[in-house]
This record gives sequence, C-alpha cells and structure tokens, in this order.
Amino acid sequence: VPKVSEEHVQARRAQILEGARRAFARDGYEGATVAKLEHEIGLSRGAIFNYYPDKWSLFLALAAEDQFEFMRVLEDEGIDGLLRRLAEESPDWLAVYFELARRLRTNPELMQELQNRSPEASRRGDELLAALQTRGEVRSDIELETVIAFVNIVANGLALAISLGLEMDVDALLKLVHAGIDPVPK
Amino acid sequence: VPKVSEEHVQARRAQILEGARRAFARDGYEGATVAKLEHEIGLSRGAIFNYYPDKWSLFLALAAEDQFEFMRVLEDEGIDGLLRRLAEESPDWLAVYFELARRLRTNPELMQELQNRSPEASRRGDELLAALQTRGEVRSDIELETVIAFVNIVANGLALAISLGLEMDVDALLKLVHAGIDPVPK
Repeated sequence: VPKVSEEHVQARRAQILEGARRAFARDGYEGATVAKLEHEIGLSRGAIFNYYPDKWSLFLALAAEDQFEFMRVLEDEGIDGLLRRLAEESPDWLAVYFELARRLRTNPELMQELQNRSPEASRRGDELLAALQTRGEVRSDIELETVIAFVNIVANGLALAISLGLEMDVDALLKLVHAGIDPVPK
Repeated sequence: VPKVSEEHVQARRAQILEGARRAFARDGYEGATVAKLEHEIGLSRGAIFNYYPDKWSLFLALAAEDQFEFMRVLEDEGIDGLLRRLAEESPDWLAVYFELARRLRTNPELMQELQNRSPEASRRGDELLAALQTRGEVRSDIELETVIAFVNIVANGLALAISLGLEMDVDALLKLVHAGIDPVPK
C-alpha cells in the first residue's frame, strides 16, 4: 500500500467535491449518473468511491460544506449577509436540495443524516443567533427557537424563489425581515 | 352522442380531481402512474383523459383549486388565516409542489402555465394585499410588490417545513411575520 500524504488526501477530496457539485448542479441529483460524475470530477468511480462510498455521501459532504460556509457568513456578516449570500447562490445547485425533499421526507434515516451532517456547524448557528439575541440585536421577547424557525423559513422560501429563477429585491426583503426580528423599541 | 348534463360534468370533474389529489399525495407526481390514477379515481384512463388531457393538466387543475381556496382564506381570514391554513395542509400533498420544482425551473413553458393557472385568483391575491395596505393593516412605507414577495417567501418556507414534517409553532411565527408587515407606529 503506497503512503498517501494528508495533503494529497485533502486535495483529492476537494477535487471530488468540486466536480460533484458541478455535476449535481448541471444534471440534478438523479440525473448525475456515475459516468457523469467520473467525467466532471476527472477520476474513475473506483477513485471517487474510495473517498465517498456513494452518491448520497457526496451530497452530504457538499451540504456540510454549505452549512459551514453559511455559518461563517452568519458569524461575519449576520443575518443580512446570510440571506444576501443565499440570494447569490447558484439556482441550479439550490434546486438539488428541493429535488431531494421528497426522498428526505419519506426516509427519516436520510433526514437524520442530513440534519447531523455537521452537528458542530448546526450548534454554531444556534449559538450565533443566541448571541445576537443576548447582545440585543435580535428581539428577546420571542423565544430563540422561534427566531431560528423564522430565519430558517425565510431562508428556505428565498432559496426556493432563487431556484425557480424569480426576481428578488433582497434589500427590500431584509427590511421586512428586520422589522420581524429586530428588538421592539420601548 | 349522448347528452351529458352540466351537473354530471361537474360531478365527474370533482370525482377525478379528488382521486388525483389522493393519488399524487400518496405516490408523488412521478409515482402516480396512470394505472394508480385509474384505481384511485375509479374511472378508466379514457374517461379521465376525456376531462383532462394528461397528468400535468390534472396537477394544474389541482393547483388552481388550491390557489382559489387560499385566496378565499386570505379574503376571509387575512394573512394569519392563510398561513394557518397552509400549516394544516397535508404534508404529502405539499411535497408534490416541491417534487415539481425541478421540472418547472428547467421548463419555462410549464412555469408559465402554472403561473397562469388561474389569473383571476392571482390578481385577486394581489388586490387583497393591496386592500390590506390601503386600509392601513399592512405597512405602506414598503412597496406592495415587496409585501407580496415577503408573504410568498414565508408561505413557501412554511410549506417546505410542513412538507418535511418539521414542527412549527404557527402562533409564534405569525408574531414575527406581523412585526415584519404591520404598519410602523408613528
């Protein structure tokens, strides 16, 4: 067995994920056959599945990347930054999430796997919103859980609109979102 | 050609749509084969497609029913009623919309057909929100178009959450939505 450096492993993983993201975005989750994944990634199925056992694992890894990135944006640029970032996301890629909705809802195990894809990032998101509330940047007369649900609902509704190619005035939308979650003046 | 009364035609259409709604909700849009539609509706494919030329027409008719019903609720019970009604909708049925998202986005013609499914109901929705704004029940410092986009985004995000089986505290959500769109106190 040849020795493979950690650096090499990381580079390969990045190559595989970048190619898989392009393939899913172009052909959809169902449409991205193993042959198409091989072509887009530039590696054989043997090499790909050596790193990720199946197509679902590839998607989970990409969703974990997204979650990590969105949490970074939430931390650095707040809820505004998060929604702006989402509005700039590739409609083709966002569509993959909606394509998978049916599979997720009929398979609680897959749903659990997706929710657990990056427990650290998920906890971080809740902590960041909690911190916003503690610092008084988000209203505190509403339970944190509700604020989280509201931000999620707006984010998902926005993602669907972007994915369908609908035009969105994010600045105007943010004004209403802020009216929803900003602290109530005394 | 036997004479068919208008009443009979209406009853048949209702029977077909009710059965198709059940079939789509249970098996999904793709999964609802013609054989399954026949079984659930209790009519032969010939009889069904005499009223609706294809599966897509059945879905469009059901989406028009939904739109009509949601507009009725919006008129009678306002935005609160609309979001509450949506939260009580069948997750299985809502999932059909998300299942179709990919097809809609890659086919502008289908998207246009869906948007035009019931132009009267759509215009009515915009008019109802405009009336709420005129009556001062919705803030008027924001363009009507943005209010409509916000309500749509929240409704779609809520529909996705319901479809995925996530728990939702609609009362708490409504509080944040109202903070977003209620008139700003002077």
